[in-house]
Amino acid sequence: MESYFPQVPRIAYEGAKSKNPFSFRFYNPDEIIAGKPMREHLRFSLAYWHGMCAGGNDPFGRATMDRSYGASDPMQIARNKAHAAMELMDKLQLDFFCFHDRDIAPEGATLQETNARLDEIGQLLKELSAEHNKRVLWGTANLFDNPRYMHGAGTSCDADVFAFAAAQIKKALELTVMLGGQGYVFWGGREGYETLLNTDMALEQDNMARLMHMAVDYARSIGFKGDFYIEPKPKEPTKHQYDFDASTVLAFLRKYGLDKDFKLNIEANHATLAGHTFQHELCVARINGALGSIDANRGDEQLGWDTDQFPTNVYDTTLCMLEVLRAGGFTNGGLNFDAKLRRASWQGEDLFHALISGMDGFALGLRMALRVLEDGRLDAFVRERYQSFTTGIGADIVAGKTNLQQLEAYALQKGEVAPRQSGRQEYLENILNDILFG
Amino acid sequence: MESYFPQVPRIAYEGAKSKNPFSFRFYNPDEIIAGKPMREHLRFSLAYWHGMCAGGNDPFGRATMDRSYGASDPMQIARNKAHAAMELMDKLQLDFFCFHDRDIAPEGATLQETNARLDEIGQLLKELSAEHNKRVLWGTANLFDNPRYMHGAGTSCDADVFAFAAAQIKKALELTVMLGGQGYVFWGGREGYETLLNTDMALEQDNMARLMHMAVDYARSIGFKGDFYIEPKPKEPTKHQYDFDASTVLAFLRKYGLDKDFKLNIEANHATLAGHTFQHELCVARINGALGSIDANRGDEQLGWDTDQFPTNVYDTTLCMLEVLRAGGFTNGGLNFDAKLRRASWQGEDLFHALISGMDGFALGLRMALRVLEDGRLDAFVRERYQSFTTGIGADIVAGKTNLQQLEAYALQKGEVAPRQSGRQEYLENILNDILFG
Amino acid sequence: MESYFPQVPRIAYEGAKSKNPFSFRFYNPDEIIAGKPMREHLRFSLAYWHGMCAGGNDPFGRATMDRSYGASDPMQIARNKAHAAMELMDKLQLDFFCFHDRDIAPEGATLQETNARLDEIGQLLKELSAEHNKRVLWGTANLFDNPRYMHGAGTSCDADVFAFAAAQIKKALELTVMLGGQGYVFWGGREGYETLLNTDMALEQDNMARLMHMAVDYARSIGFKGDFYIEPKPKEPTKHQYDFDASTVLAFLRKYGLDKDFKLNIEANHATLAGHTFQHELCVARINGALGSIDANRGDEQLGWDTDQFPTNVYDTTLCMLEVLRAGGFTNGGLNFDAKLRRASWQGEDLFHALISGMDGFALGLRMALRVLEDGRLDAFVRERYQSFTTGIGADIVAGKTNLQQLEAYALQKGEVAPRQSGRQEYLENILNDILFG
Amino acid sequence: MESYFPQVPRIAYEGAKSKNPFSFRFYNPDEIIAGKPMREHLRFSLAYWHGMCAGGNDPFGRATMDRSYGASDPMQIARNKAHAAMELMDKLQLDFFCFHDRDIAPEGATLQETNARLDEIGQLLKELSAEHNKRVLWGTANLFDNPRYMHGAGTSCDADVFAFAAAQIKKALELTVMLGGQGYVFWGGREGYETLLNTDMALEQDNMARLMHMAVDYARSIGFKGDFYIEPKPKEPTKHQYDFDASTVLAFLRKYGLDKDFKLNIEANHATLAGHTFQHELCVARINGALGSIDANRGDEQLGWDTDQFPTNVYDTTLCMLEVLRAGGFTNGGLNFDAKLRRASWQGEDLFHALISGMDGFALGLRMALRVLEDGRLDAFVRERYQSFTTGIGADIVAGKTNLQQLEAYALQKGEVAPRQSGRQEYLENILNDILFG
Repeated sequence: MESYFPQVPRIAYEGAKSKNPFSFRFYNPDEIIAGKPMREHLRFSLAYWHGMCAGGNDPFGRATMDRSYGASDPMQIARNKAHAAMELMDKLQLDFFCFHDRDIAPEGATLQETNARLDEIGQLLKELSAEHNKRVLWGTANLFDNPRYMHGAGTSCDADVFAFAAAQIKKALELTVMLGGQGYVFWGGREGYETLLNTDMALEQDNMARLMHMAVDYARSIGFKGDFYIEPKPKEPTKHQYDFDASTVLAFLRKYGLDKDFKLNIEANHATLAGHTFQHELCVARINGALGSIDANRGDEQLGWDTDQFPTNVYDTTLCMLEVLRAGGFTNGGLNFDAKLRRASWQGEDLFHALISGMDGFALGLRMALRVLEDGRLDAFVRERYQSFTTGIGADIVAGKTNLQQLEAYALQKGEVAPRQSGRQEYLENILNDILFG
Repeated sequence: MESYFPQVPRIAYEGAKSKNPFSFRFYNPDEIIAGKPMREHLRFSLAYWHGMCAGGNDPFGRATMDRSYGASDPMQIARNKAHAAMELMDKLQLDFFCFHDRDIAPEGATLQETNARLDEIGQLLKELSAEHNKRVLWGTANLFDNPRYMHGAGTSCDADVFAFAAAQIKKALELTVMLGGQGYVFWGGREGYETLLNTDMALEQDNMARLMHMAVDYARSIGFKGDFYIEPKPKEPTKHQYDFDASTVLAFLRKYGLDKDFKLNIEANHATLAGHTFQHELCVARINGALGSIDANRGDEQLGWDTDQFPTNVYDTTLCMLEVLRAGGFTNGGLNFDAKLRRASWQGEDLFHALISGMDGFALGLRMALRVLEDGRLDAFVRERYQSFTTGIGADIVAGKTNLQQLEAYALQKGEVAPRQSGRQEYLENILNDILFG
Repeated sequence: MESYFPQVPRIAYEGAKSKNPFSFRFYNPDEIIAGKPMREHLRFSLAYWHGMCAGGNDPFGRATMDRSYGASDPMQIARNKAHAAMELMDKLQLDFFCFHDRDIAPEGATLQETNARLDEIGQLLKELSAEHNKRVLWGTANLFDNPRYMHGAGTSCDADVFAFAAAQIKKALELTVMLGGQGYVFWGGREGYETLLNTDMALEQDNMARLMHMAVDYARSIGFKGDFYIEPKPKEPTKHQYDFDASTVLAFLRKYGLDKDFKLNIEANHATLAGHTFQHELCVARINGALGSIDANRGDEQLGWDTDQFPTNVYDTTLCMLEVLRAGGFTNGGLNFDAKLRRASWQGEDLFHALISGMDGFALGLRMALRVLEDGRLDAFVRERYQSFTTGIGADIVAGKTNLQQLEAYALQKGEVAPRQSGRQEYLENILNDILFG
Repeated sequence: MESYFPQVPRIAYEGAKSKNPFSFRFYNPDEIIAGKPMREHLRFSLAYWHGMCAGGNDPFGRATMDRSYGASDPMQIARNKAHAAMELMDKLQLDFFCFHDRDIAPEGATLQETNARLDEIGQLLKELSAEHNKRVLWGTANLFDNPRYMHGAGTSCDADVFAFAAAQIKKALELTVMLGGQGYVFWGGREGYETLLNTDMALEQDNMARLMHMAVDYARSIGFKGDFYIEPKPKEPTKHQYDFDASTVLAFLRKYGLDKDFKLNIEANHATLAGHTFQHELCVARINGALGSIDANRGDEQLGWDTDQFPTNVYDTTLCMLEVLRAGGFTNGGLNFDAKLRRASWQGEDLFHALISGMDGFALGLRMALRVLEDGRLDAFVRERYQSFTTGIGADIVAGKTNLQQLEAYALQKGEVAPRQSGRQEYLENILNDILFG
C-alpha cells in the first residue's frame, strides 16, 4: 500500500531519556495509570481539518503546504486523504478523529451533488475506520466557509440560508451516526455579528435555539445517543460570537431549555481569547455538569487571534487534566488536537513533530495531575480552607437554615471578624513547581 | 448656610453656543423631548463615592484632593459631606444619588457602633433629601474595602465573614428603603478568585446565591418594591470576578432562580474590560428583559483597568440611549455617574467640569438617539434585512412549524442559495455620522 | 468605454443636508479652507490592494466578492483592473493611488516573466494615469504573500530569499519612479519572528538595515527624490514584527544611520494593535520630524487583529488632522485608505459607500481640526500650562544652564512645592465636544 | 536581638525531595555551576518597597498587612524596618537590596527635614549592611507617590517640580554611592501623559533628557562607577508612559546621546504589559548591548495591570536565564524581586513562602538554561538555520559587498527560490519540554 508519510516511522514510546525525535517520551498508550490505560484517559483525536486539510495560509500569505495527496481531482484528493489520515493515526497511535462535512469531501455544484460526495467518502471512512480500528470523537458541519453563510447560518438574516444550514446539519448528523460518532459539535463561526447597526440579536438567538432543538429532535430520532456540544468562542471571524464563553453558553442553554442535551466543548485558545484561563473554562463547565469534550491547543498570550498552536505548556496541560480527573474523566468526549502547524512548518515530518509535542505535552499533564492528587497537599489545603462551612453557622448557611436577621444577630454579637488565614497563593504555586520539577 | 463650592455658580442651560464653562450646552433638564422632560429620560445620579469621597489616589500615589469638608473628626466629615452633596446636586440639577454604606458614614470599632453611625447619617440624609428634593437611585453595601473581605464576602471561605456581610447587607437594605431608594445593587468586588489553586468555585457560587435569596426575602419583608441589580464586572480587584459580564450573570440568575427579582446594572467600563462594547452589554440586557440601570462612565481602550472616566464620547452615549429608548426608557433605574476625576484634576471646580461633561455628553446622546429614530433609516434597514422570516419558510421557522427533514427537502429543491444582500456596514456607519454631524 | 461600476454615478459634494448616499456631505474637493483646497490638505489615495484586489476572504471563509473585472486570464484581469481603478478614482475624485508590485500584475513562473508582466502593466498605468490625471502616492513590494518569504524577506534565514527580495524591491522602486511616485514604503509583514527558539534577532535586524541602505542607494541613483517610509506594525502575521511602533522604528533608524532618508507611514489600526492611540503615534512621528504619510483606517477596540475598517470615527479623524496641521501639512505623503470592505459588504456599490464614508469622515476631521485651532482654547491651555519653563529657573533648565547642585539649593530654599494647577482633562474633553457638536 | 520573623527559621537548601516549606529545593547558593556559585549567577535582591513596606492595599481595599515593625513613630518604624530587612535577607540568604529614598525613611515637612531623615537611616543601613554583608544592587528616587508629581517629575509642566525632582535625585545618588550601590534606576511612573489634549510631548521628553544628563554628570563627579538604568514600562499609573518598552527607551537614549551611560532594567510584568514576552525584551536589550539588570516578577496574562507576582513559571525563568547567560552573565545588575504578596497573603510567613518560590523558580531557571546550553540542540539548530549567510552571496550581503543590481542579477539567474527548510517551531518546543521534564 502506498504511504503518504514514508519518511516517518511508527511512533513508539521510548521513555524520557530518548533523543529520538520520532518517539514518545511521556505518552505510553497502554500503560495503566490510575486504573486505566493512558489512551483511555486521554482519548486523543486528530482534527481532520487542521491535520489533513490546512495548508498554512494566513491573512497575508498563501498556502505553504501541499495537501493534494498525490492527486488533482478533488474527489480523488478526498479519497487519498482518507487513506492518509488512517496512516497518520496508525503511526501516531491516535484512536479518534473529528471532522466537518467539508473536510472529508468537497462541495459540489448543488446540495444533491455535495451530499452524494459525502455518501461516497462517508462509506469509505466507515470501511477504513473499521479496518484501522478508529472512531469518530465528534462530527460537525462547516457553516462558515461558504459565502452563503456570510451573515450567519442559524443566525442568518435570510431564511433560505437557515434552511440550507439545517439541511447541512441533518446530513452531518447522519454521517456522525453512521461513523459511530459519540458527539456532535456546534461551533458558530458566523453566528454573531459584525455590527449592531444591522443586527436583530433577539431574533438571531431565538432562531439559533430553534435550529438546535430541531437538531436534537432529528438526531435522537435516528438513534444518536451521544452528546451535543457547543464550543464557546468569543469572536473571530465575527466581531462578536454569540457563544462567547462557557458561562454565556450556559445562559443560552438554560434560557432555551437545551441544557439537558448539550454540554460544552472547551478549547484552550478560545478560553484565552475570551479573557479566561483554559482551566477557568474547564472548571466552569465541570461545576455546571457540562464538561463534555476538549479542543486541545493553545494560544499566544501576546496575540489577539486564534493561533491554534499545539499544546506544549505543561502547567496548562496539568491543570487541564486535573479538571478532567475531578470531573471523573471523559465519557463521550476526549482531547481533540484542534491545532495547526505554524505556516513555516511546511515539511511532511512537521505534522508528526507537532502531534508528538501535543501528545507528550498532555501525557505529561496527566502524569503531573495524578502526582498532584497523590501528593494531596493542594486538595487538603482547599478542604481545610472552607471547613467553617461544615459546622455551626457555616453549616446553617449551606443548609439554607438561616436568614439575614439571624446572621445580623450573630455578627452583632461578634462585633468584628477578621480573616482566619492567608490565601497562601505563593505557597501553593511553589508546591506546584515542587511537584512538576521535584 | 456654608458653601462647600463657593467658587461655582448654579449650572444652567445656556445652549450650544455658550462659551461659559459653568453652563450646560446640551442638557436642558425641563425641556420636553419625545414626550417627557430630559431629566426624566436621563435620571442622572451622583455616585456618592466618587463624587464626595475619592481623593485621587492610585496604586502609585497618595490622594491629591481634599475631601475633609472643613472637618477632622470622621463623623463631622460625614455630616458636612452630606450637606456638600446636596449643594453639589442642587448646583448641577442632579435629582438622584447612589451610595455604599461606607460612603456616607465611617466604620466604627464594632458593628454596633458602625450601625449607630449609619443611623445618624441616614437620618440626616433623609431630612436633607426631603428638603432638597433628592432621591436615592440605589443603595449598596461596601463589601470589598475592609480586610475582612480579602477572601470575598458572600463567597468568603470563612462563614463568619459571610455572616458579617449578611449583616451589612441587611442594614444597607434598611437604609435604602428608608431613603426611598428604588434599587439595590450587588457589585461583587471581592466575589471571585485570585487563584484556582485555593478555590472551591462551586461552593462559593452556591453561597453567593444563598445570600442573594436571603436579601430578596428580607427586603420584600420590609417593603422594598424596587429592583435588585447585579453589576457585572470581569475582574479587578480580583483575577476573576464571578459576575464577569451580562451573559454570565444571566446564567447565574437562571441557575439559582433569581431572575425574577434581579436585573442588571450595566457599566460602560466594565463592559469594555470584559471584551465587549457598552452597547453590546446593554443590548444583551435589553433582549433578556434585564436592563435595569446604568453606570455611566467610560474606560480607556488602551488600558486594562477600570479608569472610570467621565463619559464624553457621543458615539457611545448615542448608542447607549438608543438601547434605553428601545427598552422603553428607565423604570426604576437611571444614569449613575460612576466616574471619577483624573488624579491631576484636583481642584474644586474640576468636579463640576467633569459632571457637566458627562451630563452634556449624555444629553447629546439622548438628542442624537432620538434623531436616529426620527431619521428611521437604520431601523428600516434592519426590518428589511430580516423580512424573509415574516413569510413562507422563514415564518414557518419562527413559528416552530418545521423540522430538519422539511428544511432539507426545501434546500435540496433549491440546490444552492446565495446571500440576498450586503450587510452594508460602511453605509450604515456613514448614516450615523450623517445624523451626528449633518 | 466599458464601465466597471455602471450602477454608481460620479460622487459630488451636495452638502450636509443631502440624503443621497452617493454624494459627499462634507468633502468638497476644491473648497479652499485654511489657504488651500481640501484635496491638497487631504491627498486621498486609493489602496490598490484593498480597493481593487481583496475579495472578502478571512481565515474562516473564502472570498465573497468578484474581482475578475469580466476576465479570466490573469493578465487580462490585471489590465481591466487598471481601467477599473481609474474609473473608480474618477468617480470618487481620488487623485492618488498606492500599490504593491503584486497588486497590479500577477507573478509568473520566473522572476523574468514576473518582471515582464510588471513592465506591461506599469506602462499601461503610466498611460492611464496621465490620461486620468492620477498620481502614485507611494509604491511598495509585496514581500509577504509568496511562500518563499515564510521566514521573512530582508530578515529571512536564507540568503537566496534575501537576494530575491532585493530584486523585487529594485523593480518596485523602478516602477514607483516611472509612475512619478513620491514615496516608497517598507512594510515588513514577515520581518519578525514566530518563535525566539529559532531566531537570530541581531543578524536579522542587521540584514534588514543592509537591505534598506541598498534600496536608498539604488533609488537615489535612478533619480528618486521622494521619501522612504517604514510602516510600523507590532504583529500579524508574525508573532512579533520588528517595526513594532513609531518609537521602535526610530530606534532602528538611528542605530543604522537611516534616519535621514526614512520617515514613518503611520496606520491607525497598527497604532491600536501596538497599544497606542492613532494620535499618539502621529504625535511621536511629528515631534521627531518623521511624520511622512498615513494609512487611514481604523481597528476595532475589542479585536486583536488588523480589521482595516474604513475610518468613520470623527474624534479620531479630528485628532489625526490636528497632528497633520501641526506638522505643517503633508509634503510627499497623504491619506491612503488602507481599509477593506467587511466580508458581508460584497456588492459593487459597497466600495463606493465605504470610500465615501472614509473621505467624508476625514473631511469632517479636517474641518473640525481647523475649528479647534480657530477656537484656540486647547492650544492656549497647553501654552499656559508650561509657561514656567519660559522664565526663571524653568528657562535655565531648558537652556541647559543649571545642574543638580543648583536645583537642590533652589528646592531646599523652597522647602516644598505643590502642583500649580489642575490638568483639567475633563474640561478639555468637554471643549472638544463643544467644538464638534456646538 | 529582637526578631521580626520569629516563626521562620533560616532557609537552607534541602534538595528537590524536601517537603519542608521553609527550605530551598533548587537554590543552593554556594553550589558551583558553570564556573561560579549560584548566588553569583543570580545576584538575588530584595525590593525594599514590596518586601518591607507594601501592605496589600489595592484600588478597592485598604492594607491587610502590618508593616509597623512594632513601632508607631514613623522614624522608629524606619529604624526597625532596616533591622527587619537585614533579618529577612539573612534568613533567605539574599545578598542585595534595592530601594527608593522614600522606602527607607519617611518624608518630613520640608526637603531639609526629609534629607536629614535620609541621612540618619542611610547611616544606619550602611552600618547594618557592613555587619550583615549586604550590598545595594541599585537605588532610586520615588518621584511618583507625592501629589507634587501628579503631572510628572522630570516631565512636569511646572519648573519648580522639576527642580524638586532634581534635588531628590541628587540625594538618592549620594545615598546609593554611600551604600556602595552598583546601579541607579530611573523608573518614570509619572513621566508620561494622561491626555494629549493638555500635553507638550516634545518639551517633556527634552526636559527628561536634560535631567538625566545632569544626573550622570553629578553622579560621575561624586565617584559613581556603576550603571544607570531606565526601566521601561508602557503605562500605569499614566495612560502612556514615555519609557514604553526596551526599543522605545533605546530610541530615546540614542536621540539624546545617553546610550553610553544608560542600560536597561527589564521587568517581566512591564514586558507583558507592553505586549511583549519577557524574553523578547531581554533579547532586545542584549543584542543592543543594554541588558543591565532585571526586575524579576511576573504578570497575569488575563490582567491589564502590573500584578507584580512572584516569578514561578519555569518556562519564563529558563528563557530569562538563557538570555542572561548569552549576555555573559550580570556585571553590575542582578535579579531584583520587584514582586509583592497577594493581598490575601497577609501573614508573616507568606513573605518567606513567596521569596522562596521566586528564588527556587529562578534557581530552576538557571539549572534548566544550563541544560539547554549543554544539550546544544537549540543553539545548533539556529546556527544551521542561518548558515547561508556564511558563504557565497550570503557572506557578501553580510560583508556589505553587494547591491540591488547584483542581487537582482543573481535572482534573475535563479528564476525562483523556495524556502530551504521548515522553521520547526513544534519540534523545538518539544525539545524544550524534553529538557525541562526529561
